[in-house]
Amino acid sequence: MFTLPQKDFRAPTTCLGPTCTQDLGSGHGDDLEGECSRKLDQKLPELRGVGDPAMISSDTSYLSSRGRMIKWFWDSAEEGYRTYHMDEYDEDKNPSGIINLGTSENKLCCDLLSRRLSQSDMQRLEPSLLQYADWRGHLFLREEVARFLSFYCKSPVPLRPENVVVLNGGASLFSALATVLCEAGEAFLIPTPYYGAITQHVCLYGNVRLAYVHLDSKVTGLDTRPFQLTVEKLEMALREAHSEGVKVKGLILISPQNPLGDVYSPEELQEYLAFAKRHRLHVIVDEVYMLSVFEESVGYRSVLSLERLPDPQRTHVMWATSKDFGMSGLRFGTLYTENQDVATAVASLCRYHSLSGLVQYQMAQLLRDHDWINQVYLPENHARLKAAHTYVSEELRALGIPFLSRGAGFFIWADLRKYLPKGTFEEEMLLWRRFLDNKVLLSFGKAFECKEPGWFRFIFSDQAHRLCLGMQRVRQVLAGKSQVAEDPPPSQSQEPSDRRR
Amino acid sequence: MFTLPQKDFRAPTTCLGPTCTQDLGSGHGDDLEGECSRKLDQKLPELRGVGDPAMISSDTSYLSSRGRMIKWFWDSAEEGYRTYHMDEYDEDKNPSGIINLGTSENKLCCDLLSRRLSQSDMQRLEPSLLQYADWRGHLFLREEVARFLSFYCKSPVPLRPENVVVLNGGASLFSALATVLCEAGEAFLIPTPYYGAITQHVCLYGNVRLAYVHLDSKVTGLDTRPFQLTVEKLEMALREAHSEGVKVKGLILISPQNPLGDVYSPEELQEYLAFAKRHRLHVIVDEVYMLSVFEESVGYRSVLSLERLPDPQRTHVMWATSKDFGMSGLRFGTLYTENQDVATAVASLCRYHSLSGLVQYQMAQLLRDHDWINQVYLPENHARLKAAHTYVSEELRALGIPFLSRGAGFFIWADLRKYLPKGTFEEEMLLWRRFLDNKVLLSFGKAFECKEPGWFRFIFSDQAHRLCLGMQRVRQVLAGKSQVAEDPPPSQSQEPSDRRR
Repeated sequence: MFTLPQKDFRAPTTCLGPTCTQDLGSGHGDDLEGECSRKLDQKLPELRGVGDPAMISSDTSYLSSRGRMIKWFWDSAEEGYRTYHMDEYDEDKNPSGIINLGTSENKLCCDLLSRRLSQSDMQRLEPSLLQYADWRGHLFLREEVARFLSFYCKSPVPLRPENVVVLNGGASLFSALATVLCEAGEAFLIPTPYYGAITQHVCLYGNVRLAYVHLDSKVTGLDTRPFQLTVEKLEMALREAHSEGVKVKGLILISPQNPLGDVYSPEELQEYLAFAKRHRLHVIVDEVYMLSVFEESVGYRSVLSLERLPDPQRTHVMWATSKDFGMSGLRFGTLYTENQDVATAVASLCRYHSLSGLVQYQMAQLLRDHDWINQVYLPENHARLKAAHTYVSEELRALGIPFLSRGAGFFIWADLRKYLPKGTFEEEMLLWRRFLDNKVLLSFGKAFECKEPGWFRFIFSDQAHRLCLGMQRVRQVLAGKSQVAEDPPPSQSQEPSDRRR
Repeated sequence: MFTLPQKDFRAPTTCLGPTCTQDLGSGHGDDLEGECSRKLDQKLPELRGVGDPAMISSDTSYLSSRGRMIKWFWDSAEEGYRTYHMDEYDEDKNPSGIINLGTSENKLCCDLLSRRLSQSDMQRLEPSLLQYADWRGHLFLREEVARFLSFYCKSPVPLRPENVVVLNGGASLFSALATVLCEAGEAFLIPTPYYGAITQHVCLYGNVRLAYVHLDSKVTGLDTRPFQLTVEKLEMALREAHSEGVKVKGLILISPQNPLGDVYSPEELQEYLAFAKRHRLHVIVDEVYMLSVFEESVGYRSVLSLERLPDPQRTHVMWATSKDFGMSGLRFGTLYTENQDVATAVASLCRYHSLSGLVQYQMAQLLRDHDWINQVYLPENHARLKAAHTYVSEELRALGIPFLSRGAGFFIWADLRKYLPKGTFEEEMLLWRRFLDNKVLLSFGKAFECKEPGWFRFIFSDQAHRLCLGMQRVRQVLAGKSQVAEDPPPSQSQEPSDRRR
């Protein structure tokens, strides 16, 4: 756990990291100082991979301590992206700009989507869409979401609109669920490597932490694949958290997994859910890549397809259009939960996560168009994903780089450990910077809390000409890098972080 | 301050109201119990007007204590609206349904807006609008907002896009500002009566409270109008909060004021801002009704029009399209602040308050169309507001009901005290229920924390046929009511609350 600089703090406290900022009242310094010190004494899980706390601006006396923490996430966590946005590649205007293989977006189907969203059935402007509506989302949309999820998740029974809450994306849903399920300072278990932005999503408003279930690439014991999640590892991580005084309230599962591309079998899902039930843990199942399974042989199963959920009142499923419909800028996400207390509490927060009535109408139109989805969008999207995946895979194979990828998602999890002579995170960072200096943005493993230095996530869901140029720049770096075992230290010591999906 | 029922609480604490729920860690019961008890001993400002805490569901063991508080706001605070939504008036389908004179929406210009938003310049679907963007809002939109505010706020110098942060409505902005400016448990000063939903906006995520500056209708001392805000009253409320151990971090001003319809003169604004500067208080100036000043004689001035702000680094202005463009369902709001720390911290939270790229494009198109705004929309909107206002005013005059209304906003603040024989809030509630039973929804003064029982807010910005029927139903109730001094107690004892604008 990090501590913020003391200089401009007014409250007489010693512990102001994200794990306890919201615990700070004012005028109760002594007691809280005691409380915070006690927390510091406990070996709490660290908040790692989010930059160097020493860089937190000291000129922020206008902000509360949590405001400074929130600002610090912005300042430090987006460095790679700021560099990219100042020098974005453009085929015509900036051909020597940075190629982005770091942000998990699907840029392969913009043509299909633009065409569909431009059709006349999308434009409707009736007054009710411009006025206050149910904060859970318009009923017509929740009905459509229930039908959509019933069909595409292959639910054994029709899903129900009253279990649906609609909001402006998965990030908001993590924020709301963390707040209504956990007290400040409590935690969710999460297997690593994982999509690192979840750290902020549960922390910035909710002040909730993550307790890691560290997985590694070595296949041992009964494992059948690298980074395999097992109930034994879950049990161990839970015991460890308890022994450190951390109260765990739930488990976060991402399926298909980001960055591994793994999908869980129905048997695995049942085991994880049974584990959660035994310990009365909520399970948040993030299925935002569920329609981005582009290899037919992959037997993906939504948790909503299971015949019987072990603990339906504690099982909460999230989905969004950001990934599966390649529209991260459209801001549409949804919760599905049978627990009406949870649905209502999240709905109560939805006034802060609401989306336009116009967009709600468009999304209902999109989701109800199964003909277009089944006959046009999904076949073409999967074919394009597959082709792009094949291209990047072959490039990596030609370079002799091992990688994991199971035919789902937009990413290849590549093992560049052989390029790190000492196998440290510092070297991982140096290699990342070398890529960035050579105008290609990747995501490094530490941003996903991978415990083994040297893993990188390659996004392949982009146009061929950009992929081609990006991989050419990767090759250049690796060719140079393989000949230079020791590098001079970088001029900038701040640790950047890569926090977009 | 209220306490939640203890029954299903696991943490051994005694104080779980909104003022301290986020302070609760788990596994630290003794210390926190002490902390909470101490807070109870202090006479903290009450969280009033939000329903009866005894009604908080006891079957919510799946939620955290703050989750239960958040859910309770939904369950209790929306009763009037739920009743309304189950029986909405429709001229054809449900002519005996409830007429809504409670929600502050402008329903007079749907035709103009639908026409404008349907024009071809609104439809653009380029890929960048569907992809991740700057969380502060697309630059093209922030530039347009800066130009729009410069012009319509009559800023002495051009406002700057880097001071603009765009998000999905004013509610979100209150939530974000409260969180980044205050520690949990700290407070903003706010003059009452005020738009009551701000209580939730600063509390649900931020756990920030409001310290009331109670104004009353009696014109005393140097006052020139009822419910007049003066620096003396601000000073007194601040002293009182301090004496109660409440740390005040800022002041919230609503101008034009909701529900009074007051506008502050430039001299008054300067005085309030100078008061805030003296005490190093932030000022949040909510100007969401700034273009809804329909009486030309009203000399409305935006705080951004002032030649010199006393403390620009602590002055934060909010505006939205919900009221001035009658589009509360479109979810567009904006912050303007010169303080880059505050702008950045709010931006960091904007991933939870983001709006669709498509809507951002539409809003930029709308805000840049000064010709349409000046020549079509504003003249017609103001003429319609004025006509509707005249109608309801005359109805009230005919009933002999005194009221306040200064030609701004959508509301008339009416004095129904003569209909409360004992002048209690219980009678105010009975009268409100009588209106609802007679199928007209109004907002009662307690929802605005008015300290005098008997004031009601009438929304007049609706179509003539609905206003006409609504006022007819009001007349019926008052005619009956004036003859029945004592009523039997209502069958339902839960106190509802009226929390929409």
